[in-house]
Amino acid sequence: MKYLRIGPAGQERPVASYDGRFFDLSAVTPDITGAFLAAGGIGTVDGLPEIDIAGQRIGAPIARPGVVLCVGQNYAAHAAESGATPPEQPIIFYKAPNTVIGPDDDVLIPRGSTRTDWEVELGVVIGRTARYLASPDDAAAHIAGYVLSNDVSERTFQLDDSGGQWSKGKSCETFNPLGPWLATADELADPARIGLRSRVNGEVRQDSTSADMIFDVHYLIWHLSQYTVLEPGDLINTGTPQGVALSGRFPYLAPGDVMEIEADGLGRQRGTVRAAG
Amino acid sequence: MKYLRIGPAGQERPVASYDGRFFDLSAVTPDITGAFLAAGGIGTVDGLPEIDIAGQRIGAPIARPGVVLCVGQNYAAHAAESGATPPEQPIIFYKAPNTVIGPDDDVLIPRGSTRTDWEVELGVVIGRTARYLASPDDAAAHIAGYVLSNDVSERTFQLDDSGGQWSKGKSCETFNPLGPWLATADELADPARIGLRSRVNGEVRQDSTSADMIFDVHYLIWHLSQYTVLEPGDLINTGTPQGVALSGRFPYLAPGDVMEIEADGLGRQRGTVRAAG
Repeated sequence: MKYLRIGPAGQERPVASYDGRFFDLSAVTPDITGAFLAAGGIGTVDGLPEIDIAGQRIGAPIARPGVVLCVGQNYAAHAAESGATPPEQPIIFYKAPNTVIGPDDDVLIPRGSTRTDWEVELGVVIGRTARYLASPDDAAAHIAGYVLSNDVSERTFQLDDSGGQWSKGKSCETFNPLGPWLATADELADPARIGLRSRVNGEVRQDSTSADMIFDVHYLIWHLSQYTVLEPGDLINTGTPQGVALSGRFPYLAPGDVMEIEADGLGRQRGTVRAAG
Repeated sequence: MKYLRIGPAGQERPVASYDGRFFDLSAVTPDITGAFLAAGGIGTVDGLPEIDIAGQRIGAPIARPGVVLCVGQNYAAHAAESGATPPEQPIIFYKAPNTVIGPDDDVLIPRGSTRTDWEVELGVVIGRTARYLASPDDAAAHIAGYVLSNDVSERTFQLDDSGGQWSKGKSCETFNPLGPWLATADELADPARIGLRSRVNGEVRQDSTSADMIFDVHYLIWHLSQYTVLEPGDLINTGTPQGVALSGRFPYLAPGDVMEIEADGLGRQRGTVRAAG
């Protein structure tokens, strides 16, 4: 099953997608919430009213997450391009959940920014409270599904303006385009091997696969559950592969740029970059 | 005005306190939420039913914040005891909002922890959306009030287990006792000079005042609003003064310890430390 939220920002309605068709979930749940996911979502679209979503805005596929928890330097080649050695344990930080926007919404370059950067990532949405899981084998039962996520970052804010704590460059408004849909694991050919790509103005920036992660999704969920309590609806951004502007190989984002990211089975985002007003 | 939430965890009801008396707010708002604070709270307790809260649990005075945003090393003497030089700009990080518990609830030492530490802090609750404020002078109008906050920390998780990103040692369950009440600014003699103290088993650990902050509350709100959008109900922990276990002068917390913190005009917390089950 795939879940989406369709409609104007702040007025999205919940939608299920199955076999290329779309169904209104409003009679089942007021929104795609942690509670809806914890209850197992829906098993079938039988009986739901089919709808046409053509021409409508696509919102982020989950209502505001409790946390957006990010894993840093989880691809060896990206760690290298960032000037770091691969981590021995997962590096985590948070970004403000109000950064989450729809997949095609404008991304705003913050005032004073000169180094706004993209990061295509595999997002994982929690489906069941995870606390001190016994092993990575227990992780799958705690995952509601997967989602395409752009962990937009301002590198000066992240690396220079906060004593080395990264969140200041991660929490600017519009900094987490999410979606277009949340896919349950069975929708994906292989959640452990998802191709991830980003482009700016049509030129390839990142082109990798989640198989190159240092710590895989199940290990991450288990590990994180030793340090915090993950709750239904929480979003985990699992790290970005090489090919960001921080590498020095590409220019940072500028107003007017078209930023696209995509992932196998998780759709595509296409947003325009603008200056914050 | 002071706001509290009274009742069993997850079933708290909103309460106002004025002149030492308590009034049920249930008819006015379902909870102490960002929306309630953004609407200005209440101006008077006239007409509200007076209640007796004796013997009842006190919850955190705000329903779950959108973010818990923390300021690091904001007291020069604490930066020094942590082995750091005072920051030139505010250092920020987030902790998971589900760490927030009532002021007297048990604090759990995480499994595997040997270095769980206290941090008494002045907490600020946002009352109005703050985005790109023009100056620190604009901050006061965006503050709903002040609250006593304990930014409990696990130092190995914080400093060693996450590549230097602190949040892993800040987001363990029960790691943010909050309250007992949220006080509007007019309740406090001088919000810029609030005495802050902590004790473990009756022995003084921290004894300082918010006047020793490197970056004061108004500066912080203005500064943060350049990097993220603060929303009503968000909690900002503004940093801790010297006297934590990380200094090497005191032992870390152990099961059975009684941890107390207090702040002028903001009440007192008294929780028991236990091992996570």
